[in-house]
Amino acid sequence: MCRWLAYFGAPIPLEAALYSPAHSLIDQSLHSQLGAEATNGDGFGIGWYDHTPTPGVFRSIEPAWNDANLRELSAHITSGHFFAHIRAAIGSAVQQTNCHPFRHGRWLFMHNGYIAELATVKRDLMMAVDPSLYCDIAGQTDTEVLFHLALTFGLEDHPAEAVSRAIGVVEDVGSRHGIRDPFQGTIATTDGERMWAFRYSSARKTRTLFFTRDVRALRKLYPDEEVLRRLSDDARLVVSEPVGNLPGAWHEVPESSYGVVGMGEDRLVPFKVQEPGHAVAVGV
Amino acid sequence: MCRWLAYFGAPIPLEAALYSPAHSLIDQSLHSQLGAEATNGDGFGIGWYDHTPTPGVFRSIEPAWNDANLRELSAHITSGHFFAHIRAAIGSAVQQTNCHPFRHGRWLFMHNGYIAELATVKRDLMMAVDPSLYCDIAGQTDTEVLFHLALTFGLEDHPAEAVSRAIGVVEDVGSRHGIRDPFQGTIATTDGERMWAFRYSSARKTRTLFFTRDVRALRKLYPDEEVLRRLSDDARLVVSEPVGNLPGAWHEVPESSYGVVGMGEDRLVPFKVQEPGHAVAVGV
Amino acid sequence: MCRWLAYFGAPIPLEAALYSPAHSLIDQSLHSQLGAEATNGDGFGIGWYDHTPTPGVFRSIEPAWNDANLRELSAHITSGHFFAHIRAAIGSAVQQTNCHPFRHGRWLFMHNGYIAELATVKRDLMMAVDPSLYCDIAGQTDTEVLFHLALTFGLEDHPAEAVSRAIGVVEDVGSRHGIRDPFQGTIATTDGERMWAFRYSSARKTRTLFFTRDVRALRKLYPDEEVLRRLSDDARLVVSEPVGNLPGAWHEVPESSYGVVGMGEDRLVPFKVQEPGHAVAVGV
Amino acid sequence: MCRWLAYFGAPIPLEAALYSPAHSLIDQSLHSQLGAEATNGDGFGIGWYDHTPTPGVFRSIEPAWNDANLRELSAHITSGHFFAHIRAAIGSAVQQTNCHPFRHGRWLFMHNGYIAELATVKRDLMMAVDPSLYCDIAGQTDTEVLFHLALTFGLEDHPAEAVSRAIGVVEDVGSRHGIRDPFQGTIATTDGERMWAFRYSSARKTRTLFFTRDVRALRKLYPDEEVLRRLSDDARLVVSEPVGNLPGAWHEVPESSYGVVGMGEDRLVPFKVQEPGHAVAVGV
Repeated sequence: MCRWLAYFGAPIPLEAALYSPAHSLIDQSLHSQLGAEATNGDGFGIGWYDHTPTPGVFRSIEPAWNDANLRELSAHITSGHFFAHIRAAIGSAVQQTNCHPFRHGRWLFMHNGYIAELATVKRDLMMAVDPSLYCDIAGQTDTEVLFHLALTFGLEDHPAEAVSRAIGVVEDVGSRHGIRDPFQGTIATTDGERMWAFRYSSARKTRTLFFTRDVRALRKLYPDEEVLRRLSDDARLVVSEPVGNLPGAWHEVPESSYGVVGMGEDRLVPFKVQEPGHAVAVGV
Repeated sequence: MCRWLAYFGAPIPLEAALYSPAHSLIDQSLHSQLGAEATNGDGFGIGWYDHTPTPGVFRSIEPAWNDANLRELSAHITSGHFFAHIRAAIGSAVQQTNCHPFRHGRWLFMHNGYIAELATVKRDLMMAVDPSLYCDIAGQTDTEVLFHLALTFGLEDHPAEAVSRAIGVVEDVGSRHGIRDPFQGTIATTDGERMWAFRYSSARKTRTLFFTRDVRALRKLYPDEEVLRRLSDDARLVVSEPVGNLPGAWHEVPESSYGVVGMGEDRLVPFKVQEPGHAVAVGV
Repeated sequence: MCRWLAYFGAPIPLEAALYSPAHSLIDQSLHSQLGAEATNGDGFGIGWYDHTPTPGVFRSIEPAWNDANLRELSAHITSGHFFAHIRAAIGSAVQQTNCHPFRHGRWLFMHNGYIAELATVKRDLMMAVDPSLYCDIAGQTDTEVLFHLALTFGLEDHPAEAVSRAIGVVEDVGSRHGIRDPFQGTIATTDGERMWAFRYSSARKTRTLFFTRDVRALRKLYPDEEVLRRLSDDARLVVSEPVGNLPGAWHEVPESSYGVVGMGEDRLVPFKVQEPGHAVAVGV
Repeated sequence: MCRWLAYFGAPIPLEAALYSPAHSLIDQSLHSQLGAEATNGDGFGIGWYDHTPTPGVFRSIEPAWNDANLRELSAHITSGHFFAHIRAAIGSAVQQTNCHPFRHGRWLFMHNGYIAELATVKRDLMMAVDPSLYCDIAGQTDTEVLFHLALTFGLEDHPAEAVSRAIGVVEDVGSRHGIRDPFQGTIATTDGERMWAFRYSSARKTRTLFFTRDVRALRKLYPDEEVLRRLSDDARLVVSEPVGNLPGAWHEVPESSYGVVGMGEDRLVPFKVQEPGHAVAVGV
């Protein structure tokens, strides 16, 4: 579907993470190796935190690989926490409002995967979104619906539970419509201080998700690798597909689990979908 | 908001209607005189009928005035019935899925105006759309919602009644939310054989709508006018703002009425909004 | 670099040639097998002949594979002779003025390949273009320069000789700058009645070029193939990479030769580059 | 033609200068009062200096007024010196390579005006550009040619003289081609530390150019004006058309003069075009 990258650490110019390593995210827009599609050329987006209250978001419908503006901006924007996403559209239009990351207040949200048979379940899912959030949904993607379901279920207060309940609704509505394996995906969301990265699918065969090992250990392993020198000791990258060409640099997030990355201790936790407490109305 | 033009007559290259006259629709994209906004530069669209079962649609997010592709296509596409629309966005994104005309099967639909306070009423209106049509709504505009409400109420079988009922729902939902004057606009819709053009607003102060007088009479009035020589005897233009500079060429469609233009006799009929037979659910 | 297709035959909707066959040109925009690059997503263009004096041209900077407008237009535009081109940019910007085919009067021109080290030789080549044509060059591509060199040398009167002389200048200027193998490519050009397709490179290792065998013979070979039924008996396709999955359907144009396809007899002729009669000024 | 703004002072988010004041530059993209055209909707660009060696440039072909990315970026990019430009195209394509500001190393350059009859003189002017700079010219505009002429004549060492000589060549070539009044315009150029702003036209009837009075004096005049509180004491704006609605805030740059704004003393100096020492070749 898509490829994404999340960075957390000392501020760096975005280009250091997006362009510099071999097999970078921008390379993956043309030549992904682990993605469902080799080409992720249907637009892209970046979201970054700085001194202002809400994160900045830049989204474009051009392929990332040749985009002059993305190259400029990622050389000039410096951030200690940012998201980047390249898109392979499946059915919905190539337009900015369909590009990740999505934003709500201080929160960003991005996704690689899908809600199965979206046309069948979309109306029911939209009905389950808090009415006050309904008109914030600007595009057509499954991801934006999922994000607003999670917001409905309290993403801002207890993110893991809210994502669990949102996927629970997707699975509940899907199964009532006879859809096998309603959800697939890796998800990243953040409030700018801590990031949650999920790997889950109804079929328990989820797209890959990786995070970096300790940067200090990596530097010992690869003393000549320039990209590692630009990263702070506590820097972490979470990616749908490894960037760089450094065996041993990446841990795979296990199936049905999520990681929390932030100021304090990082954690890796099993992820379980929460069934809706009360049935969600279907086909009203 | 926007400006639009509809043509019905012997096949002509689109450019004859879009570019040739003084103060043409394309000129109006830069310098509208009667529009709510002088500039209509937030994208455009054309829809045309030819030998294929469904009309063609070309939509772009560029301003029309300098668009090289629109100039090419309108010189090479010949049609006996087409719609053209230039957009001034009010709130929603500049993206192709927000550009008029909208299409469903053989039907086209375009609009100059608005549903007041869309964010307040959109969810209720979307709920009133037939669930089987819900996922056909690709963009964010009030017009596309209105179109699908009209389809829900039988646009394909009895167009005037369906539009009347659709606006009835808009006014009903709006008034329940305490919105004064929920609807404003001129609308054109067609199945390729007959076209319906509506002028109506809740406040009875609707944007202008004009149609051409008999072309033969016009030719006598303006024997030197080249654009008239390119039109067939039975050609009709319906526009939100007169094109050309020909006093006496245009009739104004009266407030709260609609015209039918097509193969047979044209008609001009009073338009009354139909209140919903049963209350539409609000704020479910 | 790029992929291209040229059609000559009874009028068909463009989509019949662009989308219908397996491994169609539009598929090749995502997954080329023979191209220098697998992805040709840096814009596209079509040029077609109809009843108007000059061919129509539609060019876009979006990837072809998901472009809604290209799909619409190729379903509604019918032509007996058209060019289509998908681009993989090498160095120059992704903008409409860099998209093929290029047009001059009734002539179209497109190319898969390159002028080596364009930055080194461009000024000299531009100086060799007829001054009256200088300002017609709107974009940055090597192809557009080559086209205007060919026009300078009489493309409209004796196309094969003009292309030969144009490439001759490219090789002459290149070799003076110490460039090894200055030219590479397959070229198609047409005046709407006859088409010339060239395969040539300074190193004599030119990108592939194919043309269809006799359609009647193909129909016997593949009686169930729908795409063949839509083609007229005299239809010919010339492509940089075979479309469809029909072994035996394609002839390869031999190295250093060109074909002429048109109303009369088709011909396949050896191609020789003509050295400039007088030296072209270098580094003035 | 166009409208532009240059800021020099303590770092501010770009939005403080671009969006905040009444009749801001972004408003002028829709409703210019002093421009040759009321609408400047054919793309825009910003260039800004930060901690990196070369200024950042972001350019887009969308109209500025509704551009979501420009709004985002100007809220998140903070700079002590930046250029912004909104374009009304006259003849050349709407593409990023035609958008101002143009950049060379640490230098930015933008322009409101034109070289008269560019098609007639362009080839001669391009020949006068240093061959090593020839291929840096990526777009079609007169401004980019002028910039590279100025670079040819030593812009980086003695800017005012170089601009004077560049315009001298334009006037010389123009007059040899019988063009009356070959040059028109206001120009801004900067190396990031000092900025030069020129007002000159061959006919001595140049488009307007304004700069702010002392901010401290302005604050006394308008104690309640929020935009003034965001500016540092030494902040200066130079604009083609006043922003804000503050009588007394603006000085007009006199006809045929230029200002220098920077770290040290500002200066306002008469501007004289320098005739080419040796004749520039025409029509070679």
